[in-house]
Amino acid sequence: MPREITAFSNPLVKRVRTLRDKKHRRDEGLFLAEGLRILTEAREVGHLPRYLFYTRASAEHALVRPLVAACEAAGGEAVETNADILSKLSGKDNPGAVLGVYDELPASLDRLDRNTAPLWLVAERLRDPGNLGTILRTADATGAGGVILLDDCVDPFSVEAVRASMGAIFTVPFARARWDEFRGWLRSGPGQLVGLSLDTQHDYRAPAYRAPTFLLTGNEAQGMPDFMAAECDLLVKIPMRGKADSLNAAVATAVMAYTVLDRLEQPGTR
Amino acid sequence: MPREITAFSNPLVKRVRTLRDKKHRRDEGLFLAEGLRILTEAREVGHLPRYLFYTRASAEHALVRPLVAACEAAGGEAVETNADILSKLSGKDNPGAVLGVYDELPASLDRLDRNTAPLWLVAERLRDPGNLGTILRTADATGAGGVILLDDCVDPFSVEAVRASMGAIFTVPFARARWDEFRGWLRSGPGQLVGLSLDTQHDYRAPAYRAPTFLLTGNEAQGMPDFMAAECDLLVKIPMRGKADSLNAAVATAVMAYTVLDRLEQPGTR
Repeated sequence: MPREITAFSNPLVKRVRTLRDKKHRRDEGLFLAEGLRILTEAREVGHLPRYLFYTRASAEHALVRPLVAACEAAGGEAVETNADILSKLSGKDNPGAVLGVYDELPASLDRLDRNTAPLWLVAERLRDPGNLGTILRTADATGAGGVILLDDCVDPFSVEAVRASMGAIFTVPFARARWDEFRGWLRSGPGQLVGLSLDTQHDYRAPAYRAPTFLLTGNEAQGMPDFMAAECDLLVKIPMRGKADSLNAAVATAVMAYTVLDRLEQPGTR
Repeated sequence: MPREITAFSNPLVKRVRTLRDKKHRRDEGLFLAEGLRILTEAREVGHLPRYLFYTRASAEHALVRPLVAACEAAGGEAVETNADILSKLSGKDNPGAVLGVYDELPASLDRLDRNTAPLWLVAERLRDPGNLGTILRTADATGAGGVILLDDCVDPFSVEAVRASMGAIFTVPFARARWDEFRGWLRSGPGQLVGLSLDTQHDYRAPAYRAPTFLLTGNEAQGMPDFMAAECDLLVKIPMRGKADSLNAAVATAVMAYTVLDRLEQPGTR
């Protein structure tokens, strides 16, 4: 049976609220996800929350009931609460109908099997959680095998990253690794490392890409360091026709990802 | 001579701070932009701030001095202040070195000349300021003629949109219009209206695009309404290979924009 919590001072409410903070997420090994769409997507791929908060008003919703049932069946706890507390937990004025507390997902390189997909997205030192979430979402949309986060990227379990991923945090395998670790793993098998760069003459549409292609996007402000560019099998440039000479990192990743897929699907047609 | 302000209670500080709010922006016809890169880009295309705030620590910076000089030469006021006040004005813990207060830019359809570019980006009811700014930035990168914002889009002069645009708010012409007004304008001259949709079988890579192409992206959550889709000369779909069946709106716009440009540049090659 779901329990009811309506007090801000409740210890569970206080504890869950601390998960908006990276240190507490790491200490507890838990993170927050919110919204019916994302939680339902998580459930469909087998991820159920340890704690599921929902409002009384949404208790009979056709998507909330199966979430509550599945959460409890898996040993989680369903908590009926009010919109004010949900709002406090999510940090949004208009919270979704539900919020879940999930175990952090595994993120080691060795869980990725490069033979499962022709395309993999790699990003180094991403700073913006929205970009990270958007890249996860793009990985889902392009059927990429997964996302590899190098060096000091923003936390993929932050509320903002999870939100921007629109559920892809649950559906797309991802890994976190130091550059040296990634390089060793990459070179232990087949794979073409393609770096997005402004310092090359290779137009992104020209090369023959070879699967599996690992598409490397650099830090939003600085791009990738020289030693990473030197390791790339290929550097490619998206032409810039404007004054600013830059694209958003998640946008550039997506333009590249769809182009690589197009070329891999139709080799030799241009 | 720049004046110095170090008190939060200063009337100008209080007034500028209210510009984070949409109502005050509209009442005053002013908006905020921050960061050396963005303000310098604005200057290069002839936009100078009414008020320019900078920290004493940055006063001798090679990019700050010409900004101060140009601002004052154009009749604006330069204000030396401290990091705390800049942080309060920008709403960021780590504010940039400078913050400018600018006159709102004109945004009527009749300032756009469709013959100046092969590609134009159109978005309807965008809700996310980051998406709006990112689409402006993509318009700059793709050399699009401009961005047209239909119906109730988020305010392009919001701090978040200006920040995400990375200066493109100043370099890319844009217009705000109601759908009926836009449709009348569009049909008064040449132009192909291409809508991004999930409800079509036309792969986005297949069609012959004709310049000027007006690329229409719908609301983040709902896509475009049926009456807009019906008006499109062409509906195209970006294939989704994942579980979520969606891309971020700004990402989808960019993937389409680069594809249209590619096809317009190399007609008949595939």
